[in-house]
Amino acid sequence: MARRLVECIPNFSEGRRIEVIDAIAAAIGAVQGAAILDRHSDADHNRSVITFVGTPEAVVEAAFAGLRRASQLIDMEMQQGEHPRIGAADVVPFVPIEGVTMDECIALARTLGERVGRELQIPVYLYEAAATRPERQNLANVRLGEYEGLKVAILNDPDREPDFGPSQLGKAGAVAVGARALLIAFNVYLTTDDIEIAKKIALAVRQSGGGLAYVKALGLLVKGRAQVSMNLTDYTQTPIHQAVELIRREAARYGVAVHHSELVGLIPQAALVDAARWYLQLDEFSPDQILETRLEDAFRQETD
Amino acid sequence: MARRLVECIPNFSEGRRIEVIDAIAAAIGAVQGAAILDRHSDADHNRSVITFVGTPEAVVEAAFAGLRRASQLIDMEMQQGEHPRIGAADVVPFVPIEGVTMDECIALARTLGERVGRELQIPVYLYEAAATRPERQNLANVRLGEYEGLKVAILNDPDREPDFGPSQLGKAGAVAVGARALLIAFNVYLTTDDIEIAKKIALAVRQSGGGLAYVKALGLLVKGRAQVSMNLTDYTQTPIHQAVELIRREAARYGVAVHHSELVGLIPQAALVDAARWYLQLDEFSPDQILETRLEDAFRQETD
Repeated sequence: MARRLVECIPNFSEGRRIEVIDAIAAAIGAVQGAAILDRHSDADHNRSVITFVGTPEAVVEAAFAGLRRASQLIDMEMQQGEHPRIGAADVVPFVPIEGVTMDECIALARTLGERVGRELQIPVYLYEAAATRPERQNLANVRLGEYEGLKVAILNDPDREPDFGPSQLGKAGAVAVGARALLIAFNVYLTTDDIEIAKKIALAVRQSGGGLAYVKALGLLVKGRAQVSMNLTDYTQTPIHQAVELIRREAARYGVAVHHSELVGLIPQAALVDAARWYLQLDEFSPDQILETRLEDAFRQETD
Repeated sequence: MARRLVECIPNFSEGRRIEVIDAIAAAIGAVQGAAILDRHSDADHNRSVITFVGTPEAVVEAAFAGLRRASQLIDMEMQQGEHPRIGAADVVPFVPIEGVTMDECIALARTLGERVGRELQIPVYLYEAAATRPERQNLANVRLGEYEGLKVAILNDPDREPDFGPSQLGKAGAVAVGARALLIAFNVYLTTDDIEIAKKIALAVRQSGGGLAYVKALGLLVKGRAQVSMNLTDYTQTPIHQAVELIRREAARYGVAVHHSELVGLIPQAALVDAARWYLQLDEFSPDQILETRLEDAFRQETD
């Protein structure tokens, strides 16, 4: 079956006015061939994340519809919140899910960016795998100074020139559009309330601290417990169990243990199967031994 | 979605003549609404296992078709093989998979048994959850004496009276028809060739030796390595990781370790997800965080 699926996870700078988020979600969901999987709003961050999937054509159309609606309903001159942001629609990543390459997702980011710049007159910065400048692979650089800082810098700093659209911010601000691999947000809670231990472990575990590749990590204090908060940016290269076991070892060195862990958002089935296989030492295994996979195949054949 | 699925895993006493196994599989696969998931033949055991799924009505129809074809093609007077057996179609279990209860599977076993007894004149013993006598819950009791022994005992031993069909064996022998929970066949290889260690561990781990409930285990020597061969008869009660970790602990007591493990046949996705969750200590998790599950739901809604 040549099903072609792309995931898109736009972040909007509105997490309080439900009617605004509903309107944006409605615009996305109205596009034929796109289906919303998840919605999450945070009032403190004043930010909402909408996860949807669809064919390559449908996700670009749906992303554009959501972006247009957000630019009409969110005024960045008024917007406040804890989360860094440069625009009403702040970040729009495309993620290859099934039957689609990363290069195709990069092309989708450019298609969307060009259209947003031209039709909505919003500055667009291509980021991560879609970046046209090396420094823009890192989203933090694109968001430097946030809306307020970018509003000034875009006028005369050649480093802040957008990939598409005008070199000037309107009330909708700017948007970062990109392509990236599927990301797993995974947090490990420790048997301590000492945030310093979480910070030391995060530093040891993350790529930038000399730890594991494809791992970003922060030490936080959440619900009265030290937490190592991670983004695993390519679980096919650096699997969850490797990160968890390294945290466990580092924690032991500080005399604490792993209390429990949590998954934020979605995870591909393969990532959990990989973990089960590693711990169970299940060397002799093929993914088509999973009953549900076999069922899908059997019933697809029936309807062919 | 009210999909109703039953699995049926008939065992046939032919593992050498491919044309016979093909003919039986063809009879099963020809039934509308039934789909074959897996076929496995063993020449030494002279036995084949065909795994198929379908609606409750379709699996009974397909099981009957396979049973009838087997009774025409396999002559128990000639049949030889290492595996215990009482008939051409030897064992026919129904397993609830989706939207179906165990009670419904018991009813399916009775429906099939009644028809096989009446139309094919083959003695039928209901076993496991479908058993009408407590001792027949254990398949080994039903198969006592095998074809040759049962041929004599059925004539005058009231304990061997079948649930359906004549009290007399023809060349097709008898058949055990039943209902049971999904079974996981899981083998753990040790870093030793000492079969006595595998036997001691199997005894400690299995229910009958005072070990874990819902675990059957044998110590074997396979490919030059000691192996603890297990059947997990209800992974929702006794999960794989519990069995593996108990084997690991027992193995350490004998100075050996787990070399690797293998899965024979199919496993439900949930059993692997359970293992991943346990090892990763993933307390805060809901199965609908699995991307593929969310995708199925989203696209089912689209087509409603």
